[in-house]
Amino acid sequence: MSLILYSYFRSSSSYRVRIALNLKGLEYEIKPVHLMKSGGEQNMPEYKNLNPLGEVPCLVHDEMAVGQSMAIIEYLDRIFPEKRLFPVAAAEGAHVRHFCEGINSGIQPFQNLKVLQKIEKDFGATQEMKSSWAKHWITEGFKGLERLLEKHSRKYSFGDELTAADCFLIPQVFSAKRFNVDMIPFKKIQSVYNHCTKLPEFVKASPENQVDFE
Amino acid sequence: MSLILYSYFRSSSSYRVRIALNLKGLEYEIKPVHLMKSGGEQNMPEYKNLNPLGEVPCLVHDEMAVGQSMAIIEYLDRIFPEKRLFPVAAAEGAHVRHFCEGINSGIQPFQNLKVLQKIEKDFGATQEMKSSWAKHWITEGFKGLERLLEKHSRKYSFGDELTAADCFLIPQVFSAKRFNVDMIPFKKIQSVYNHCTKLPEFVKASPENQVDFE
Repeated sequence: MSLILYSYFRSSSSYRVRIALNLKGLEYEIKPVHLMKSGGEQNMPEYKNLNPLGEVPCLVHDEMAVGQSMAIIEYLDRIFPEKRLFPVAAAEGAHVRHFCEGINSGIQPFQNLKVLQKIEKDFGATQEMKSSWAKHWITEGFKGLERLLEKHSRKYSFGDELTAADCFLIPQVFSAKRFNVDMIPFKKIQSVYNHCTKLPEFVKASPENQVDFE
Repeated sequence: MSLILYSYFRSSSSYRVRIALNLKGLEYEIKPVHLMKSGGEQNMPEYKNLNPLGEVPCLVHDEMAVGQSMAIIEYLDRIFPEKRLFPVAAAEGAHVRHFCEGINSGIQPFQNLKVLQKIEKDFGATQEMKSSWAKHWITEGFKGLERLLEKHSRKYSFGDELTAADCFLIPQVFSAKRFNVDMIPFKKIQSVYNHCTKLPEFVKASPENQVDFE
């Protein structure tokens, strides 16, 4: 059995999948894809053969390739059902997915590299304007996530067991810190972050511990 | 059994869920949420009690409320497994989710109302600049989706059976047309769109057939 993850150290979507693989105790090989070198290695034809959407992460399990962190983690949960990341009970699973999507489609897209590049190109946004743009979306998104955590969190995002929500939350907090988001109002988020980042599965997945870290 | 969908006629995420509910032949009540009236009804405290992320759509099934179209459709597939929208086989399910996320996190976030409002506010984007911004993200995203459809589509996005991919694709094409995206290069997308929009489940879900249509 072979598992290869195409990943970029700073990509928060790649980071999510690295955490998920670690939580499941799976062995995998990392193949770094540099999002800026040579116009972005994710845009090369060989890479697009693998992942037609031309994005990281992409997981290759034996002959099967799949992109998008939600799709990858859902897949891993089916193929390697030990240490489930999405609760099997329909309502609990729905709450975890709701939370994950609040990050996946509700925050991360707005702060990713290609969007920051685009607001610079189209509107002449300076470094400071790009930072404030990213900060805005993260802060607004965190308000909603904090309200969800008030309902559901204990030690981790959903009770005392790790779920996919934690795989999504920790990389997003990492980005928030990079953009100097004020974390004081987000007590629940910060508490879950503090618990998770002590765990070896999260430490091993973090950007500074990647082979392609710069 | 009661199913209530909080929906806005033009929201493409709401449109996806309306299609999914119709494909499963479920009866449901629509409660319109106006995204602009009174500063956006989705921001009202009573609505945020229901959906802490303050977004449409939100599905209430008996006592259980869940937001985010992916989470809702995954939930529906578990509670009402007839006419499955995500294939049960892990690899096929992963391909469908990959495609859906290419829209859900890869296109739609960039063209939604709050982002268009934000680029106007922060950068003074005119109507024309906002249109060209939306067009850019849809066109770039469609290139990847077209490549995925070349691998997987027949009559519909994945073979000859309807899946969640079609629930996501049709509303996105609807938005593309609103922003005058040139559809000529996207032959597969257009072909799937032509097949789907003939079906009563899609017709009933479309923005112009909603009670809150303006």
